[in-house]
Amino acid sequence: MSVAGVKALTFDTFGTVVDWRTSIINDFSAFGTRKGLKADWAALVDEWKTAYRPGMDAVRSGKWPWTTVDGIYRIKLDEILPQYGLGGLGEDDRMHLNRVWHRLNPWPDAVEGLTRLKKKYVISPLSNGDVACLVNMAKHGGLPWDVILCAELFKHYKPDPEVYLGAIACLGLQPHEVMMVAAHNYDLREARSHGMRTGFVPRPTEYGPNQKTNLKAESDWDVVAKDFQELAAKLGA
Amino acid sequence: MSVAGVKALTFDTFGTVVDWRTSIINDFSAFGTRKGLKADWAALVDEWKTAYRPGMDAVRSGKWPWTTVDGIYRIKLDEILPQYGLGGLGEDDRMHLNRVWHRLNPWPDAVEGLTRLKKKYVISPLSNGDVACLVNMAKHGGLPWDVILCAELFKHYKPDPEVYLGAIACLGLQPHEVMMVAAHNYDLREARSHGMRTGFVPRPTEYGPNQKTNLKAESDWDVVAKDFQELAAKLGA
Repeated sequence: MSVAGVKALTFDTFGTVVDWRTSIINDFSAFGTRKGLKADWAALVDEWKTAYRPGMDAVRSGKWPWTTVDGIYRIKLDEILPQYGLGGLGEDDRMHLNRVWHRLNPWPDAVEGLTRLKKKYVISPLSNGDVACLVNMAKHGGLPWDVILCAELFKHYKPDPEVYLGAIACLGLQPHEVMMVAAHNYDLREARSHGMRTGFVPRPTEYGPNQKTNLKAESDWDVVAKDFQELAAKLGA
Repeated sequence: MSVAGVKALTFDTFGTVVDWRTSIINDFSAFGTRKGLKADWAALVDEWKTAYRPGMDAVRSGKWPWTTVDGIYRIKLDEILPQYGLGGLGEDDRMHLNRVWHRLNPWPDAVEGLTRLKKKYVISPLSNGDVACLVNMAKHGGLPWDVILCAELFKHYKPDPEVYLGAIACLGLQPHEVMMVAAHNYDLREARSHGMRTGFVPRPTEYGPNQKTNLKAESDWDVVAKDFQELAAKLGA
């Protein structure tokens, strides 16, 4: 079995470990109720999320200096709030909304699966999120990480090679001793290209009920599991 | 109280959290028994440890390229083994001995104190140890870190400012929201110079029964506690 020598698992986090879309819609809806504000929260979230890739591309191309994901989202949030009738929100509210990425809830199987996996493997996020975001999210959701590895440490965003190679080096392991786990095929393709093992866990509603991409494994990934519990079982944990 | 705004605690690790000297002497003695080898293990450990500062200074001055602490100790280990009648040891044994830094045991109060502190604060090492060493040590000793921050991430060794400032930035906090906890006054002096809060926990037998330094607080550190349980009590955790 090609996963026999695996010692550590690195997890994509947004979408793979936490359900960002539902979490943010619920968080913002509750905020609206508290403040007596109405808005199409789902549309706002979906438009907000589109800032992610262009923001990282701006960093990658050198158009922007290193900018954290928190920073990328804040720029976009300020830009779109007026379109949703929320242009009057002050700085404290904007900071609160932007920090919703620190308050995301895990998928229902995630904590129990990670807790099982932690007994046998070193487990870490390998996310484009910032250290503080991932630390706070772990506190919020009870994610039992051994270590927090992410883009900010390497000043590169996935799928840049520096992120995968940096994580492998930090773990003091060989590439084949580390398995990347993700709900996104592109992430696994890149991980495999560096010699890492690959685990695919589909999250078919990450982008809502009409999701069209990443519904299934697009290659012969080393492990495919329907959730983290099945992943733990397949990895003997 | 000057610690009212503290949100995260960063811990020096070797000496402050783990009892490296006793751990290594016991580990090497057991190794000797298994292999039928006799040596003055305490003397070997004390001599080995002297490699630490010159090695870091060689990195700091640019004489050496970035070298992990594991790397620094390996160079010294190979150098001194023959003096202790152990020059015949092969590569596997040398690797095993050098990785003893990954197998250090916490001081008796450490795990319980950290577990209490974790409920109220983000807790992290801020160590000159490598990521892999600190991750493996946490697995070995049950240290419940939220995140692993260390020299390797910033490619600088304490007391270089980059380590303290890098940790504060990664945590997404202001300096006064982070408390450095250490058994070494020099570490707290540097942390304070960057605006961090300071906690001193003396470890008067870190260097053995004849230790002469760091027996007491040399400044008015924000908190002084005899162990991590008292530290937790004083910090309301």
